[in-house]
Amino acid sequence: MTNQPISGNDLARFSGPQTFMRLPEAQDPAGLDAALIGVPMDIGTSWRSGTRFGPKQIREQSAMIRPYNVQTGAAPFDGLNLADLGDVAINTFSLSETIRIVENSYDRILRHPLIPLTLGGDHTLTLPVLRAVAKVHGPVALVHVDAHADINDEMFGMRECHGTVFRRAREEGLVDPRKTWQIGLRGTGYSADDFREAAGWGFHIRQAQQLWHQSLKPLAAEIREQIGDAPVYISFDIDSLDPAFAPGTGTPEIAGLTTPQAMELIRGLHGLTIVGCDLVEVSPPYDMAGTTALTAANLMFEMLSILPGVPFR
Amino acid sequence: MTNQPISGNDLARFSGPQTFMRLPEAQDPAGLDAALIGVPMDIGTSWRSGTRFGPKQIREQSAMIRPYNVQTGAAPFDGLNLADLGDVAINTFSLSETIRIVENSYDRILRHPLIPLTLGGDHTLTLPVLRAVAKVHGPVALVHVDAHADINDEMFGMRECHGTVFRRAREEGLVDPRKTWQIGLRGTGYSADDFREAAGWGFHIRQAQQLWHQSLKPLAAEIREQIGDAPVYISFDIDSLDPAFAPGTGTPEIAGLTTPQAMELIRGLHGLTIVGCDLVEVSPPYDMAGTTALTAANLMFEMLSILPGVPFR
Amino acid sequence: MTNQPISGNDLARFSGPQTFMRLPEAQDPAGLDAALIGVPMDIGTSWRSGTRFGPKQIREQSAMIRPYNVQTGAAPFDGLNLADLGDVAINTFSLSETIRIVENSYDRILRHPLIPLTLGGDHTLTLPVLRAVAKVHGPVALVHVDAHADINDEMFGMRECHGTVFRRAREEGLVDPRKTWQIGLRGTGYSADDFREAAGWGFHIRQAQQLWHQSLKPLAAEIREQIGDAPVYISFDIDSLDPAFAPGTGTPEIAGLTTPQAMELIRGLHGLTIVGCDLVEVSPPYDMAGTTALTAANLMFEMLSILPGVPFR
Amino acid sequence: MTNQPISGNDLARFSGPQTFMRLPEAQDPAGLDAALIGVPMDIGTSWRSGTRFGPKQIREQSAMIRPYNVQTGAAPFDGLNLADLGDVAINTFSLSETIRIVENSYDRILRHPLIPLTLGGDHTLTLPVLRAVAKVHGPVALVHVDAHADINDEMFGMRECHGTVFRRAREEGLVDPRKTWQIGLRGTGYSADDFREAAGWGFHIRQAQQLWHQSLKPLAAEIREQIGDAPVYISFDIDSLDPAFAPGTGTPEIAGLTTPQAMELIRGLHGLTIVGCDLVEVSPPYDMAGTTALTAANLMFEMLSILPGVPFR
Amino acid sequence: MTNQPISGNDLARFSGPQTFMRLPEAQDPAGLDAALIGVPMDIGTSWRSGTRFGPKQIREQSAMIRPYNVQTGAAPFDGLNLADLGDVAINTFSLSETIRIVENSYDRILRHPLIPLTLGGDHTLTLPVLRAVAKVHGPVALVHVDAHADINDEMFGMRECHGTVFRRAREEGLVDPRKTWQIGLRGTGYSADDFREAAGWGFHIRQAQQLWHQSLKPLAAEIREQIGDAPVYISFDIDSLDPAFAPGTGTPEIAGLTTPQAMELIRGLHGLTIVGCDLVEVSPPYDMAGTTALTAANLMFEMLSILPGVPFR
Amino acid sequence: MTNQPISGNDLARFSGPQTFMRLPEAQDPAGLDAALIGVPMDIGTSWRSGTRFGPKQIREQSAMIRPYNVQTGAAPFDGLNLADLGDVAINTFSLSETIRIVENSYDRILRHPLIPLTLGGDHTLTLPVLRAVAKVHGPVALVHVDAHADINDEMFGMRECHGTVFRRAREEGLVDPRKTWQIGLRGTGYSADDFREAAGWGFHIRQAQQLWHQSLKPLAAEIREQIGDAPVYISFDIDSLDPAFAPGTGTPEIAGLTTPQAMELIRGLHGLTIVGCDLVEVSPPYDMAGTTALTAANLMFEMLSILPGVPFR
Ligand SMILES: [Mn+2]
Ligand SMILES: [Mn+2]
Ligand SMILES: [Mn+2]
Ligand SMILES: [Mn+2]
Ligand SMILES: [Mn+2]
Ligand SMILES: [Mn+2]
Ligand SMILES: [Mn+2]
Ligand SMILES: [Mn+2]
Ligand SMILES: [Mn+2]
Ligand SMILES: [Mn+2]
Ligand SMILES: [Mn+2]
Ligand SMILES: [Mn+2]
Repeated sequence: MTNQPISGNDLARFSGPQTFMRLPEAQDPAGLDAALIGVPMDIGTSWRSGTRFGPKQIREQSAMIRPYNVQTGAAPFDGLNLADLGDVAINTFSLSETIRIVENSYDRILRHPLIPLTLGGDHTLTLPVLRAVAKVHGPVALVHVDAHADINDEMFGMRECHGTVFRRAREEGLVDPRKTWQIGLRGTGYSADDFREAAGWGFHIRQAQQLWHQSLKPLAAEIREQIGDAPVYISFDIDSLDPAFAPGTGTPEIAGLTTPQAMELIRGLHGLTIVGCDLVEVSPPYDMAGTTALTAANLMFEMLSILPGVPFR
Repeated sequence: MTNQPISGNDLARFSGPQTFMRLPEAQDPAGLDAALIGVPMDIGTSWRSGTRFGPKQIREQSAMIRPYNVQTGAAPFDGLNLADLGDVAINTFSLSETIRIVENSYDRILRHPLIPLTLGGDHTLTLPVLRAVAKVHGPVALVHVDAHADINDEMFGMRECHGTVFRRAREEGLVDPRKTWQIGLRGTGYSADDFREAAGWGFHIRQAQQLWHQSLKPLAAEIREQIGDAPVYISFDIDSLDPAFAPGTGTPEIAGLTTPQAMELIRGLHGLTIVGCDLVEVSPPYDMAGTTALTAANLMFEMLSILPGVPFR
Repeated sequence: MTNQPISGNDLARFSGPQTFMRLPEAQDPAGLDAALIGVPMDIGTSWRSGTRFGPKQIREQSAMIRPYNVQTGAAPFDGLNLADLGDVAINTFSLSETIRIVENSYDRILRHPLIPLTLGGDHTLTLPVLRAVAKVHGPVALVHVDAHADINDEMFGMRECHGTVFRRAREEGLVDPRKTWQIGLRGTGYSADDFREAAGWGFHIRQAQQLWHQSLKPLAAEIREQIGDAPVYISFDIDSLDPAFAPGTGTPEIAGLTTPQAMELIRGLHGLTIVGCDLVEVSPPYDMAGTTALTAANLMFEMLSILPGVPFR
Repeated sequence: MTNQPISGNDLARFSGPQTFMRLPEAQDPAGLDAALIGVPMDIGTSWRSGTRFGPKQIREQSAMIRPYNVQTGAAPFDGLNLADLGDVAINTFSLSETIRIVENSYDRILRHPLIPLTLGGDHTLTLPVLRAVAKVHGPVALVHVDAHADINDEMFGMRECHGTVFRRAREEGLVDPRKTWQIGLRGTGYSADDFREAAGWGFHIRQAQQLWHQSLKPLAAEIREQIGDAPVYISFDIDSLDPAFAPGTGTPEIAGLTTPQAMELIRGLHGLTIVGCDLVEVSPPYDMAGTTALTAANLMFEMLSILPGVPFR
Repeated sequence: MTNQPISGNDLARFSGPQTFMRLPEAQDPAGLDAALIGVPMDIGTSWRSGTRFGPKQIREQSAMIRPYNVQTGAAPFDGLNLADLGDVAINTFSLSETIRIVENSYDRILRHPLIPLTLGGDHTLTLPVLRAVAKVHGPVALVHVDAHADINDEMFGMRECHGTVFRRAREEGLVDPRKTWQIGLRGTGYSADDFREAAGWGFHIRQAQQLWHQSLKPLAAEIREQIGDAPVYISFDIDSLDPAFAPGTGTPEIAGLTTPQAMELIRGLHGLTIVGCDLVEVSPPYDMAGTTALTAANLMFEMLSILPGVPFR
Repeated sequence: MTNQPISGNDLARFSGPQTFMRLPEAQDPAGLDAALIGVPMDIGTSWRSGTRFGPKQIREQSAMIRPYNVQTGAAPFDGLNLADLGDVAINTFSLSETIRIVENSYDRILRHPLIPLTLGGDHTLTLPVLRAVAKVHGPVALVHVDAHADINDEMFGMRECHGTVFRRAREEGLVDPRKTWQIGLRGTGYSADDFREAAGWGFHIRQAQQLWHQSLKPLAAEIREQIGDAPVYISFDIDSLDPAFAPGTGTPEIAGLTTPQAMELIRGLHGLTIVGCDLVEVSPPYDMAGTTALTAANLMFEMLSILPGVPFR
């Protein structure tokens, strides 16, 4: 019998451990099929901080989620053994040191054949996670949902922060650029190259404005077909969503995706060989009613619902 | 001449009595065609509390509403005599006692041939209200708009709380299951039976995901046709709306209905023999800018605008 | 070389002057093609106040905006010389005196051939601005985006406040009624004449409910064609947006426009001879996470991006 | 039997009418010994607005207050007949018009021999109230508790706003300057005359810094003795309190009075011939947890507890 | 070696398990000298709810506390073995059932000779805890710090809720009335008997007004002397503090204790034979900046610092 | 004539530039006697972030301050020429780089004989500022007001962050330990050495608990006498104040100083040869009503009021 979340019928939702969905906490990754990991950092952010409290808040809101995905039929806890591995012991005063620690931590975790599900934390964390993932799987296909391309060459002279992740990932061969999608991009920029350059690398860019007023099922189908059976990493920046749906983030951009679109997109990726997922940039000080963290928790549950090996009933 | 709301041109909106739309308060239901009634309770809630302040906050925000429904032409106060009957004197320490008090109060009120318009309060209140309504009208058709089906058999051993209302209502013959619609359902659950069982009773289930990206006018037309001239009760749980539109509620679920959809649905029910309406689950402590209560007040006005006897001009 | 915003790569976004997009502040309008001007007032509001802090908050949030409009290709600072002229020194105790001061200030500014871009402040300000604009350009075409028609004859006996602006503007010949659009109207009213009368003057009314679930590109195209090369003023009341997108305003109305719609509308007006724009009714005390001000800042940037003379690349 | 507040044991505190302490609302002042009156205005404020919602919020928080003053033994409702007369129908667009309306309203009310207890609203309201009071009682002794002296000659050319009240009151002979106390003054100013001039008129100035770390019982005793049996008006600006105790106000000044000091002061004035009281400058948008309004409600109850005719038991 | 909190130098404070002070969580009380226990309930509250989230929020804020009490020299973790036992599985829909569950849970826990340190939750919980404690220790001396006496006979017909605890405790012989102190009482009431009756039972009443402007060291010394070596229970209602220090509570009363007074009181009780402590009535939805929960966490740490067996260095 | 703040009588307080007290902004320090400088950083914080917005928010709230210190008679702008030099262009991704930039910036500024008045930003900034100051003045006397000693040797292996400042300052000979006061210390720690070690260096420690319930005038007099005419730096961490007065900070500790105490302390230092001041650790996301920033602005004005050369009238 696999680990199970505590049911809201057994223990009131405002009680119990503050793990993701009130799953058991584990120290040891052995025997797990997938695991939640928090990376509570915000020193890689450029506008509003606060994402250091993201993992805490997402876990708190996740107490609302029940174990069965009624809408899709997925029953992740029937087939997979999951646990919450707690937080990486980042160094809150040093971005470079934190990046190193995250990579090392994931190297250790990925000695076990599990799928890491990361709760951020600012988007910088995706770089060391991808480094660890690529050591295991080679260059991965990437579904990157974000308001921003995060492909700056540097910011304030730093080559590794939340705005440079995917340029680095490509340079280092962590991702397969021809199997990389960037979805939800918008906001303002500095030049027409902002998106063109990545397109030149092979990245598939889907700006938010191309997606307004429509279902994302067709896009998901297209991605699924083109990625085939390559190993895939999903990096979900909560600011891909419109601030109406996700106000609690550090660099919000208006006119973004809706939560129905986000769910269609994730659900439509079912069948892919997912090897890792993250949900980043939730900033609780700007999330007055907790809805951003609630949204993040649910989207993580949706990603969890499409992992390889999840049964449907 | 019927009771009229105080006009914003006669008295500044931030002034005056805190009744719904600043209508006269009445102690005696005699002579009224419909009446607003508050049921300020939250001890039937399972996650975040606070709905005990719902009626107060909805009334405060209702001061913004003007008496004529420009968008539909409805002029409810031209044809109906309305008043605000204030709050039911619930027992804040006992859920079962409160359920009993609400039923008794509505029994007394419904000795008069008026349409009760209830401001909640948590969804538990709908059960005793339906009991009183069914004594007058027999089993009613039901339009239940909600993120949740509220058909648990029990929660923590309790058979009457905000999550069991509609199973009880069916068991007790308060509603006609073949004329019952549940609209906006979503979120997570425990098994595939969560929705299937109610479908087996005859309930018409419309999950939120079936309604994304589309107008609800066709659905409203379908309901109107199938219900015909049966007496109808509308129970509107504000959490049917997406948290972007209604963050101030106790058990929010992402990817819900939009306010345009809610208005299309309600307006499309015009012509039905409505015998009661409620608007529940507004939780002011989580409604920082007051928009959830404002939304609730407006949706109640929309329901009021389709009552039998309302003239259009 | 024209004035440039401070780049987020040169100075962290939470630093520097609190001008719009951290543009240089100017005392003297000479040499400017367009200019930001704050009118920090709220004594013309009828429900919740607080718009007096609107200009401050919009400027603060505008620090997030980068100079190039990636989505449309507009590069406003390549072609136009802009500055922030600071705030009009309004009289916070007297509405009539403030109206006089605003008109005088704009008269002085418009001795120079620049396009005024006004940050409000309550909607009353548009009346004196239009008076100054009409002295220069004659009656202008008007694109008025708002939840409200703002065509009352008086409120509490006052003929000039935020609810009477466009009746006055028409009476005084400041706008060409046959080239006037009112977009996003909704909410409740007092009689069927609320919208009919203005239609009789020639105003083109597009209620919000006519626009739900659809792109506004066709509407923008229609407006652009019918206005032709007449001088145009755009008055954008942030409450035209749904409160999900813009909670921080004084008289919110549910079921409004979305931000994608707002952007489609503004972008679709490119090519018109715009002679002035305003963005009004942002009320920071009700804008907990700053998203309303962020939205306002971005919409002003979108209006700035379609000004005559802006190059695209 | 006099009017009684609704008991929290009869009706849950979050229920019932939103009158002060849930007293009966009255239209007619006849037969009342004292009455609550709201003056919901904020257009006389110079920094943050929002006091227009003060009366509403104070009334909401007053639901917590029980009828007997355990700490002093006062039982106001045993001896006095009180009611809530609702709000004055101010003109929210015109300060001068509002001042005129308030004076007229109080003239009408004071045809009856009652003590007006005013809930503000900004401090401007005290001027027209004092005009009406002085018509009945002649120049009154004044206990003015405030962070500010409010004795400017004008602000932005206006001679009547929240910063000029007590200069006007003295000029017009509404108060007896030798029996006028200003308590709690602090903050910054423009010249040494800020306080000296009023001292020259006879005003007794007690700056906050003279009162730090000490009981106000001696001060109250001194005032009581010097005023003797002259008619007295108490004007209590909530910003006299330190922002730790009363953050929800428009022009907060640090290092102010504490609530124990406020209670000692008011209680120590028992025995004076009080002819009117007000509690002003509560601004709900800045009162996140409601404690400022709660404090205001309690201080009004304390003033009510020392009115002539209140029995002690 | 006893259990130790995780140090902020080993793991960033915003990381790690959400136990009190990040102590180990335990299922089994065996071997513990004292234990933290959460009782997350709010259905016993009469005004604002929300205390169901109290244990969660106190634990979150407790991450700031370091293990050594620098101000007193206490080193609790040097001498005592502590753990966090998590939350009691209350029934959120039934107050009477919850009271029964809490008593049973504490009966089970107190089979082990440990000191229970309870995190509330509303004050109702103290009744079943005292029942369990008295079974072990007989009638205990009581230090009850609160704005309210909580000695009603019933509320809404209920004999067991947050306002009746200490009348029940005395009736049932759970406390020794001659060794019972009630400290910080204030607010308003219904009759002079409110405090007199309990004084007649032998309770020592110290109203807040008797304590304003002074150190509580003398009071603590008096209590310590009179209690001698009797077993003592400390029940600390956070609303004993002034709302300036503790806004996040359900029934705040102005003019209360300060945090220095609270610390002097608790520290002054060192040497007593403490057999249990609770900290109740923290309501997070009204605790915007988290300072109430932070205060609660620190006061619990102060109580923990005076437990029998704690070494000082 | 020196630079003057814009008067609230000339321009409404919610208008105008967002400089400190709406002073002129300057690029060039030449000719200034003292200058405001912002250091908007938060990456040196260990618990809650957000101080990067401190300078912005302090400046916004400073608009309330008038130029004359009525309570002390100080008229700083009569005698000194001040300006706001804006923000240091810190590197938000690198703490060590930011420390370097701040030192270099202050080196440049201090080529001019002015007194730097720094608005933080987290406390880390004081280290590079002291380095620059000591190059000009040699080891300075220090008045350090804080809840924390900030004398850790390292945190997470970092020797320079907000918790190590004053150990480094002493090691580097930036301060004269025998003329160093640490005032307001409290909170919890790791060992008895936490305060003892610094006492051994000669630091004068005044814990908060030694200062409860009393005036700080005697302490200020003692400091003034012992420092004599040595150059003095004042470093004021806003968390020295009790969270009731200053909730908006990153590492709040309960039972701290009051604002009257803070003002007595600063005013009592008049006459010292002050060579620099800072006000740090204001975190706006946790400062809901703006009172922390208001307090910070006023305390900076008090420090400004005691600078050498300020005339009194
Ligand atoms: Mn990103
Ligand atoms: Mn992003
Ligand atoms: Mn429901
Ligand atoms: Mn629901
Ligand atoms: Mn408008
Ligand atoms: Mn509008
Ligand atoms: Mn005043
Ligand atoms: Mn004042
Ligand atoms: Mn209690
Ligand atoms: Mn209490
Ligand atoms: Mn510090
Ligand atoms: Mn500190």
